[in-house]
Amino acid sequence: MGIIAAAAPPRSVPPPTIAQQLAAKQREISVAEFFERNRQILGFDNPQRALLTTVKEAVDNGLDAAEEAGILPELLVEVAKESDDRVRVAVTDNGPGILRKEIPNVFARLLYGSRFHSNRQARGQQGIGISAAVLYANLTTARPAHIISKVEEEEAAHVLDLFLDTQKNQPRVAADDLLLWDRPHGTRIELVLKARYVRGRQSPLEYLRGAAIVNPHARIALVEPDGTRVTFERAATELPPPAKETLPHPYGLELGELGYLLKATRRPTLREFLTKDLQGVSARAANELLAKTGRSAGEAPGKIQGEAQEALLRALHEVALVAPSPECLSPIGGLLIKRGLRNVLGELRPEFFAPPVSRPPRVRGGFPFMVEVGLVYGGGLPADQPIQLLRFANRVPLLFQQGACAITTAIASMDWRRYGLDQKGGTGLPIGPALLLVHLASVKVPFTSEAKEAVAEDPEIDKELTLALQAAARHLKTHLARRGRREFASEKFAIIQKILPKLAEKTSRLVDKPVPDLAPVITRIMDVVHVEVTAANGPTGVRLPVAVTNFTPRPRVLELFVEIPPDVFARATFEPAPDGTEPELGRAWWTLPKLAPNAKTGLAITFPPTTDVEANDLDWYVAGIDESHVLGADPLPGDWDVRLPRTIVEAAELAQQEAAPSGAAADEEEVDYDAAEAGAHAADDD
Amino acid sequence: MGIIAAAAPPRSVPPPTIAQQLAAKQREISVAEFFERNRQILGFDNPQRALLTTVKEAVDNGLDAAEEAGILPELLVEVAKESDDRVRVAVTDNGPGILRKEIPNVFARLLYGSRFHSNRQARGQQGIGISAAVLYANLTTARPAHIISKVEEEEAAHVLDLFLDTQKNQPRVAADDLLLWDRPHGTRIELVLKARYVRGRQSPLEYLRGAAIVNPHARIALVEPDGTRVTFERAATELPPPAKETLPHPYGLELGELGYLLKATRRPTLREFLTKDLQGVSARAANELLAKTGRSAGEAPGKIQGEAQEALLRALHEVALVAPSPECLSPIGGLLIKRGLRNVLGELRPEFFAPPVSRPPRVRGGFPFMVEVGLVYGGGLPADQPIQLLRFANRVPLLFQQGACAITTAIASMDWRRYGLDQKGGTGLPIGPALLLVHLASVKVPFTSEAKEAVAEDPEIDKELTLALQAAARHLKTHLARRGRREFASEKFAIIQKILPKLAEKTSRLVDKPVPDLAPVITRIMDVVHVEVTAANGPTGVRLPVAVTNFTPRPRVLELFVEIPPDVFARATFEPAPDGTEPELGRAWWTLPKLAPNAKTGLAITFPPTTDVEANDLDWYVAGIDESHVLGADPLPGDWDVRLPRTIVEAAELAQQEAAPSGAAADEEEVDYDAAEAGAHAADDD
Repeated sequence: MGIIAAAAPPRSVPPPTIAQQLAAKQREISVAEFFERNRQILGFDNPQRALLTTVKEAVDNGLDAAEEAGILPELLVEVAKESDDRVRVAVTDNGPGILRKEIPNVFARLLYGSRFHSNRQARGQQGIGISAAVLYANLTTARPAHIISKVEEEEAAHVLDLFLDTQKNQPRVAADDLLLWDRPHGTRIELVLKARYVRGRQSPLEYLRGAAIVNPHARIALVEPDGTRVTFERAATELPPPAKETLPHPYGLELGELGYLLKATRRPTLREFLTKDLQGVSARAANELLAKTGRSAGEAPGKIQGEAQEALLRALHEVALVAPSPECLSPIGGLLIKRGLRNVLGELRPEFFAPPVSRPPRVRGGFPFMVEVGLVYGGGLPADQPIQLLRFANRVPLLFQQGACAITTAIASMDWRRYGLDQKGGTGLPIGPALLLVHLASVKVPFTSEAKEAVAEDPEIDKELTLALQAAARHLKTHLARRGRREFASEKFAIIQKILPKLAEKTSRLVDKPVPDLAPVITRIMDVVHVEVTAANGPTGVRLPVAVTNFTPRPRVLELFVEIPPDVFARATFEPAPDGTEPELGRAWWTLPKLAPNAKTGLAITFPPTTDVEANDLDWYVAGIDESHVLGADPLPGDWDVRLPRTIVEAAELAQQEAAPSGAAADEEEVDYDAAEAGAHAADDD
Repeated sequence: MGIIAAAAPPRSVPPPTIAQQLAAKQREISVAEFFERNRQILGFDNPQRALLTTVKEAVDNGLDAAEEAGILPELLVEVAKESDDRVRVAVTDNGPGILRKEIPNVFARLLYGSRFHSNRQARGQQGIGISAAVLYANLTTARPAHIISKVEEEEAAHVLDLFLDTQKNQPRVAADDLLLWDRPHGTRIELVLKARYVRGRQSPLEYLRGAAIVNPHARIALVEPDGTRVTFERAATELPPPAKETLPHPYGLELGELGYLLKATRRPTLREFLTKDLQGVSARAANELLAKTGRSAGEAPGKIQGEAQEALLRALHEVALVAPSPECLSPIGGLLIKRGLRNVLGELRPEFFAPPVSRPPRVRGGFPFMVEVGLVYGGGLPADQPIQLLRFANRVPLLFQQGACAITTAIASMDWRRYGLDQKGGTGLPIGPALLLVHLASVKVPFTSEAKEAVAEDPEIDKELTLALQAAARHLKTHLARRGRREFASEKFAIIQKILPKLAEKTSRLVDKPVPDLAPVITRIMDVVHVEVTAANGPTGVRLPVAVTNFTPRPRVLELFVEIPPDVFARATFEPAPDGTEPELGRAWWTLPKLAPNAKTGLAITFPPTTDVEANDLDWYVAGIDESHVLGADPLPGDWDVRLPRTIVEAAELAQQEAAPSGAAADEEEVDYDAAEAGAHAADDD
């Protein structure tokens, strides 16, 4: 009932008023019409970018499809020049193929797809990409998309020519055929579009190189217009663990989303809804929620509305829940980040690969995300330019809109001068011989546009990015500080080992006396423990012997630690057996026998022949001695939870017993160092 | 017919294959679901931005609606705090109102609107904005949008509560009432949303300030949560000329677009299609097109397909066509740019407002666009920071994503050091006490996303932006070069006028002689012509007397030029009558009587009382003398097509006759200056 019950009085037929004229113009806009007009939003701004976006969408689809079917991806991208401003591009994948009835919708209908409604990490999430490429090709050359797809259980492949009808946003099939195809299964899309092929930054080649870094299990080949063939071979022969579909987690859920879930659920009771439709709500938490909100367990979820919904959401944000499961995510992992970077940067011989940083998963809007960061420093990387930045989201390289991306903002907002890089005014991309790889993995990456080239600003994501970047930056800072000390020790080592014997020989000859035993002198001057890892690949597998020599004037009790890629840890044979291991983290450690001055000890790790491991994949650390007295291994990082009371106590006792004149004070510092490092980490995580 | 005629052989019912499993997951995605998940794309990243975007969409709609109905816009924006993270925002406009039947679709359905299909400049073009705000409010607070709208011909206003059903992308009406409203017509939208009110950069206040600059005909008031009321009063009382709907222009048309036009047209013949459905095709051009493509005038447009379409498009791009009509655009105009900037920057007292640059309209994708640039320098603008940048598209301020915007890129790619500003390495935003206002007006602004905050890269737009920026930068360079010379002259002027008489008096007293006539001495030393404009606002209107005094030791023949806002030119009275005028450009000029040394002459311009003009709106220029010899007016810019052979010839004669010792060489330079300026313009336009 209105304030005025009656409608406006009847009138004679008047000329249309302005409101009526405007109303007559109101119309529905087809989503395809919208994107046809605004194709820059989809990444089809100009001929160069249009080609990259097309390649990207097709390659992403191919990778997603193969992975979903448990197939190691193998992709072929062919680019040929059709005329001055036209390019023919074909992308063939070895995925499971697409059923005939789905082909038209998959390739020529916007907002249609299989991954939008599944709550797990995927490259394509929008159901827009490849159809947008078809729309662009139709628009600029009036040519159809030419699709071939074969599923394993059928003998022939289907061959379709497709247009996208923009006014209806529906596919139009212009040709429909069968073909005997020389592949067991797979899909091929061929488009002719207004485009331009270039090399260099923001090119298909650069995109595929980036894709190869973060998808080392894929084999990707590119045939360029001049016939050049570039192949990125696999660096890993196993598929990453598949990302699993998960339920929405209550953290970060909005009121409207909760309302929708309550309305849409098929669970008969509130308790079942809480424990079975949401992630992380245990039976105990459900009880607590029911008590807090004063609702009964058997209530129908759909009945909870208005104020009651708000109260339930408040309670969900207050009660302690199980942390979100990372199973829906597919991070790259520290090992593959390191390998990927080595792969790209090998020829530049960087001096330092920081241990890759993987943050634990967090929740945003009900869905988990996580951040990974790799940092490389020195070698042939240019010292006087802004650092190189490789951005990735869900294993997809982001090549455009760097300035608009939250990843860039997070980097630019840090004061990198504190960590040893140059930076004008303490903001902006830092300057120096470094490269940063940043990967955001999420069920729902908040891109700034459908072109999926930049991550939108978000406080939760920004926080995780910053923490990950800070951790990487701390590694850099430690490295740079250590480098100074180590360079000094290294020089000393070289000089003493070369010159001292010659000097002794010459002097002995002059004074006509026998050459003295130099060992005690050398140890006193050098004052280092030397850890030397060698590697031998043979028919019996990979053998990594480690030699530890005490070139200090005092006996030493040391602990040696190794970090092995967890997936190959089980295949390792240790001689001798370690004193402790944490297989899930790939860690093992030994307390070495007490080493007298000039004494040498050793151990070895062996992997059987087919193991996918390299010497560089292992990291060695040492404890029980100040880092300035070690060459060839790093001090144990603060994030190892292994605490070593026995060694430290023994080392302190030794120091007292022997009352060495110069070493004691330095040895005491190492305890402080560990504590300081641990403290610094704790402070950063606040 | 396929290569294989038979389908795959029948099989027993197997378990679903991977392709079948994947197919079962394929689904249509509602556009509202898509944007609910990707609300950052629409500008709802975080509570602060969500509020700004909501205000922006409602205000833009209000301005568009009022202007379409020929009403001077009057808007009220009210923001109130509802709880810690909730804000109630209401925007009321004085537009024509919306018919009851259209209200639900206008406010609660994405991709629905009246402006998408109309080919003219408008703020809202997508049919997404305000419904996105409603969707966001629904999602974050589960509250409906509360709409009041009244059209003039009905007695009561309609009051509706609306939700947007995301799965269907359809409005759901939760309440439907009538209300006696104390307004003749208009619309009010009220939303409760998760949001945060702030002041400062990227705030609603800043947005409204920007909107006021480029919409001086609108009155906009804001009530902040603490009750503070900020009102931006009108600076102009006339609506800008309405942007007219136009036909697509063949320049920049894509093949697919032409195909669609040929298919959709109702014209029976090709000739009619060419001349009546496209812009700029004259009867003569149509003949040429028919001849070039070998087609007959009476052919049905729908029959032209494939190769024939391509040939027609090629011909359309080759044949000379009438330039695109700017009538569909609504530029701000030089006068209002200047006033708007004075309005914002008044208190900073900048030393220089460059003449605003308006580029001629160009065509991109069949539709015209144009670029306007204003530049301000000096005064209280900070000298050690990047310049301030005000970006606008279709009279809407762009506050976010500056780094991702083509406007920023165009500025950052220029080497501003050539024009007198600092710039690190010759790229990036220049540093210095300057402000740039850049406006892109277009039927179809290529935004990078639906949030409409950044313009996408486009070679055509980039070219126009660069040309406009270069023109503005040249003004700055000229100003800075001139400033040095002028500062010197100004100081001399001050010193001589003050000190010389005192000196003469004192000396005369000392030597006990009468004070000599200093005039010839002063003129010889000062060597300037002084142009002084005063202004008097009185009951008889605005009177602007100009006094010109020849403080040089030689007789002078000068030409004086004035540029008046063209819309008030007709109301000006000149004493004496000018020697020439160009009313459509607002220009008038006089050849002044030959001025002996120390002689003074004058003229005046008067406007009747109600004229919307200020002394600052007029620009004065002088010719016939080197610029270093003038105080109070600028030399005639190169873009005036008025050529003045008589003055220049006479001046040269005078110079020869009088054979002045110092002035001749300098006077000759001015001819070169004009030529150089004209040459520079021509070079830039290449």
